[in-house]
Amino acid sequence: MRDGALGIVVLGAGRIGQLHARNVARSRDAELVCVADVVIEAAQALATELGSRATDDPYAALAAPEVDAVIVATSTDTHVDLIKAAAAAGKAIFAEKPIDLDLDRAREAVATVRSAGVPFFPGLNRRFDPSFRALHTRIRAGEIGKVELVTITSRDPEPPPIDYLKRSGGMFRDMSIHDFDVARWLLDEEPVQLQVMASTLVDPAIAEVGDVDTALITMRAASGALCVISNSRRAAYGYDQRLEVLGEGGVLMANNVPRTTVSSWTERGVSADPPQAFFLERYAESYRAELEHFVDAVLTGSALLEGPEDGIRALVLAEAAMESLRTGRSVEVQQGPAG
Amino acid sequence: MRDGALGIVVLGAGRIGQLHARNVARSRDAELVCVADVVIEAAQALATELGSRATDDPYAALAAPEVDAVIVATSTDTHVDLIKAAAAAGKAIFAEKPIDLDLDRAREAVATVRSAGVPFFPGLNRRFDPSFRALHTRIRAGEIGKVELVTITSRDPEPPPIDYLKRSGGMFRDMSIHDFDVARWLLDEEPVQLQVMASTLVDPAIAEVGDVDTALITMRAASGALCVISNSRRAAYGYDQRLEVLGEGGVLMANNVPRTTVSSWTERGVSADPPQAFFLERYAESYRAELEHFVDAVLTGSALLEGPEDGIRALVLAEAAMESLRTGRSVEVQQGPAG
Amino acid sequence: MRDGALGIVVLGAGRIGQLHARNVARSRDAELVCVADVVIEAAQALATELGSRATDDPYAALAAPEVDAVIVATSTDTHVDLIKAAAAAGKAIFAEKPIDLDLDRAREAVATVRSAGVPFFPGLNRRFDPSFRALHTRIRAGEIGKVELVTITSRDPEPPPIDYLKRSGGMFRDMSIHDFDVARWLLDEEPVQLQVMASTLVDPAIAEVGDVDTALITMRAASGALCVISNSRRAAYGYDQRLEVLGEGGVLMANNVPRTTVSSWTERGVSADPPQAFFLERYAESYRAELEHFVDAVLTGSALLEGPEDGIRALVLAEAAMESLRTGRSVEVQQGPAG
Amino acid sequence: MRDGALGIVVLGAGRIGQLHARNVARSRDAELVCVADVVIEAAQALATELGSRATDDPYAALAAPEVDAVIVATSTDTHVDLIKAAAAAGKAIFAEKPIDLDLDRAREAVATVRSAGVPFFPGLNRRFDPSFRALHTRIRAGEIGKVELVTITSRDPEPPPIDYLKRSGGMFRDMSIHDFDVARWLLDEEPVQLQVMASTLVDPAIAEVGDVDTALITMRAASGALCVISNSRRAAYGYDQRLEVLGEGGVLMANNVPRTTVSSWTERGVSADPPQAFFLERYAESYRAELEHFVDAVLTGSALLEGPEDGIRALVLAEAAMESLRTGRSVEVQQGPAG
Repeated sequence: MRDGALGIVVLGAGRIGQLHARNVARSRDAELVCVADVVIEAAQALATELGSRATDDPYAALAAPEVDAVIVATSTDTHVDLIKAAAAAGKAIFAEKPIDLDLDRAREAVATVRSAGVPFFPGLNRRFDPSFRALHTRIRAGEIGKVELVTITSRDPEPPPIDYLKRSGGMFRDMSIHDFDVARWLLDEEPVQLQVMASTLVDPAIAEVGDVDTALITMRAASGALCVISNSRRAAYGYDQRLEVLGEGGVLMANNVPRTTVSSWTERGVSADPPQAFFLERYAESYRAELEHFVDAVLTGSALLEGPEDGIRALVLAEAAMESLRTGRSVEVQQGPAG
Repeated sequence: MRDGALGIVVLGAGRIGQLHARNVARSRDAELVCVADVVIEAAQALATELGSRATDDPYAALAAPEVDAVIVATSTDTHVDLIKAAAAAGKAIFAEKPIDLDLDRAREAVATVRSAGVPFFPGLNRRFDPSFRALHTRIRAGEIGKVELVTITSRDPEPPPIDYLKRSGGMFRDMSIHDFDVARWLLDEEPVQLQVMASTLVDPAIAEVGDVDTALITMRAASGALCVISNSRRAAYGYDQRLEVLGEGGVLMANNVPRTTVSSWTERGVSADPPQAFFLERYAESYRAELEHFVDAVLTGSALLEGPEDGIRALVLAEAAMESLRTGRSVEVQQGPAG
Repeated sequence: MRDGALGIVVLGAGRIGQLHARNVARSRDAELVCVADVVIEAAQALATELGSRATDDPYAALAAPEVDAVIVATSTDTHVDLIKAAAAAGKAIFAEKPIDLDLDRAREAVATVRSAGVPFFPGLNRRFDPSFRALHTRIRAGEIGKVELVTITSRDPEPPPIDYLKRSGGMFRDMSIHDFDVARWLLDEEPVQLQVMASTLVDPAIAEVGDVDTALITMRAASGALCVISNSRRAAYGYDQRLEVLGEGGVLMANNVPRTTVSSWTERGVSADPPQAFFLERYAESYRAELEHFVDAVLTGSALLEGPEDGIRALVLAEAAMESLRTGRSVEVQQGPAG
Repeated sequence: MRDGALGIVVLGAGRIGQLHARNVARSRDAELVCVADVVIEAAQALATELGSRATDDPYAALAAPEVDAVIVATSTDTHVDLIKAAAAAGKAIFAEKPIDLDLDRAREAVATVRSAGVPFFPGLNRRFDPSFRALHTRIRAGEIGKVELVTITSRDPEPPPIDYLKRSGGMFRDMSIHDFDVARWLLDEEPVQLQVMASTLVDPAIAEVGDVDTALITMRAASGALCVISNSRRAAYGYDQRLEVLGEGGVLMANNVPRTTVSSWTERGVSADPPQAFFLERYAESYRAELEHFVDAVLTGSALLEGPEDGIRALVLAEAAMESLRTGRSVEVQQGPAG
């Protein structure tokens, strides 16, 4: 271990675990102690690439004395147990979203973390995207005055496999959850009313597993400020991630990030690059930045910019969306204690 | 009268009457026979400018034998009686929106028009904006396949005077009515469900007269296609009129029209012109084009691109929005016979 | 004749004569007295369309007493004689560029005009384009401080017929002449040095008639300010007309005007409309505005924004470009008296 | 040393040496063996940061057996001696531009490198910018056909200190040299004629040291294709780095990279972020990519995308520009053997 570096274990060597492990490995202030995955070959491959150790036992891995912090990037159903174990071991916790598909279990995990007094970061990475962060900073600085209407466009390039969807908890908990967090962050207050208008337009198989793929979620906060989230599981042009905030003094927008700045002018018109393909490219910088923030906050004992309540409150909005979809009605949102 | 020109009387010499009268005067195929306004000075001034006659009696004016067509641009409460009189006189009718604030009266006027068998054009001018029309043509040509999600952003630069608002019938019938028409036109099917989330954020005086100034209206058509209308009575940056249509093959957008193409790059960043200030500039071309279309269709006896049912159906959606606002619920929309 | 209207005769009923005649016909302050063309059928067709008279004798037409002003839109070789005749008749003159392909003859025409004391407008219409004018106004207002480097991109969609090119006087007098005028106008001082680097890349037939089709013309003014004109006779994407001015405080640009604001996002990327196709569309507004300016200045006796010296000085730069092309050297530009 | 990694010594711990050393340290396939700087404190600080060794003796450092490759990032006057020493020691060489201010000395260094048979990379990093590379690839793939006119805009945000300028060899060898390389790369042929039009507009002190700060460099290749480089030592809006290539089928452009995608719409208009501030940000990715390419090519023995002749030929164009500036004439460019 390098002196002063934060020793980190990464639990889960799938796509998102690999991403976090690579960011840990290149961080100046962190050290990748170990990679754990029940599929030992996956853990081994990642550990070899990054010059670390591998194990198939996440509980043993997180308890090791040289481990200061745990990144939970396993399948969702294992999050709560691993969070509790990490809290019991006194480790700082960085948990991928969602905490759990069941809100009560998620609240229970948060209560455990709070009792243990360990830092907890819910991995809502949109807040660390450079453009979104700049937009947020400018809103808070008063550039457009009071926020009146937030528009969040969030569309995946194509739907995930049906097998994934079956276990995903539905579009609102799996995909919109990031947008709920961004809505709360930009509004700077809690939505108190929520309505959903949704359809299955992309693939009938999605309807068969009880999910939707295209949705408009509208919300109102106590101040009267409004928000609409425009979700789709398909965007032929790439990953569509845009924000638009109307305030009394004007609008602030964050547009998609094109792959390059090259454009062409031909007899067919003016063409530019499509948005970056998917989240690994689009949010590469936000994943790096959230990790650096987590490492720095834990090392220095300073406050994290997101806490467990943010993970819970986004889940509460997702549940309200499911209720509105089920009942066809507007839902009053009650944000009780987070855990 | 020039041979073969369509003789037109313009009823109402206010802002919108002036606009139509000037377009008639410069049309090669129409002739401005007369301008009528109960305020004779207004009629006279406009007639003098355009080399026409003036009267304070619209009923006499519309009945004159050299009049082939009537443009109704008076205050809303006089529309129905003038439409009926014009129908009785066998004149072609171009009526500004809305037909009437009362849906039953509007339907009655439409029934009269139909019995008389005269051409009726409801003045829903957005369909004639060159960019909107190009977008619509490309959608219908199949460029993005099946339409899935329509987003209409429609924001006035600032609210009208409270006195106007009191008589306006409310934001949904006064302002959103154009957006309801555009929604139907782009979806190419009728919305069957509608929800509103709205607030008064711009001016408390608007709440005092029972109106809202900021709204999100979501709709669903029978196919499952969704639509959101994002309305505000204030946009510090000018008149905001944008369309975005997501289909299975991608997105088509129509953006705001900047005043010039000039941009600056300075130490404060890159700056471009704001959108055109308000509807007289933004839709100047669409007002011209709709008049030319009306004149041409009446002269040649060809079909009008909009009929009385379009005026009624937009009103039905506006009424549904008012009901949703009142009840806080989603409304099933029933489009009965138009008249 | 309407009271107070400026009586105008249009000489030449070709493409540009038609354009001017239509603008005269729709002007509130002018009246189209007559259209003259040696091809009487062309004159007649235009006169009929616009409700005017036709003749095949331009000299008789311009001398008529109800004629206040003459628009010279005939072939270039007839300009000087018609200008002299109009000056002798005491008429205000609006002459299409160039005054003549021979600089001495052009100067002689200007001298005649000056002796006669009649208003003369050289039809350099770029200065009346709304975006270019806004850019110029902002430069003069000091927005970017001292002008340091002007970049003018000016490319036709495709070369004119070889027969036209043979009589055109070459690319610099036929096409770049507008750019030379814009350069002088933006620099607000005279170029004193000029160099050309040019090729024939579009069509070998252009080389056969002794012309070039692709050129970079660089100039320096006495203050040291630089300018580059980037010309081509072919742009597959449409008519390319852009300005960029670097000053000590930044850059001001005027971009091409797209046909509509519609854009598409598909798997092939983001696409927008190409620039407007050619000068009749791109400069429609500037032709109208220059005519209104001419009419207004002549009627009120106020100063014209362009004078005969502007026509001469642009020609002097075109001649310098031809010399630089011939000699392969940088040319010192001497702007003597204009006429 | 990690197995299979390329051992690299970085000579020079100034701004550019630091940049390269950090890229070496984060490369998976390279290892930073040592940092050398005659200012030992600078070398030490950098070595400590990156976990490497430091020395004040570059000649000893480059000769060490564990060193496979040398990055020459010292002051320009030391380049040739260090290149020769590295060649004598059989090391692969990555040399910052320019090789030397004296073309004969630069050619001599290249001859030595060639005799030694070691890989040599001249650090012309623009070719590795993702947008420029994409543009180049698309040109070579024939997207716009034959190249006709290349426009390179290259402007620094502000001039370097006068002390730096005195030793820089002048704007053409210090700054335009990158643009000369880009011109050759995009044209895919050698410029045969070159003209300069230049001024000192930014700071009179620059004229006092015999340099210019604003220039238009025009070039023609044997095929007749043209190129203009638009240089300035000052751009109030940031670092301006744009390419535009006109071909028979249209234009390909690479625009500046904004800091974020955030834009605002207010009563003052539409504003976006300025370009990235300077080369360390703008070309961060190109510096990383060129290093990875160098490491990979040396390790695998594959061809480098740039060779010593590219360094020499860009210098030849810079010398031609100096001659054109001195004589006021167009210069015929002779590219003899590179070394």
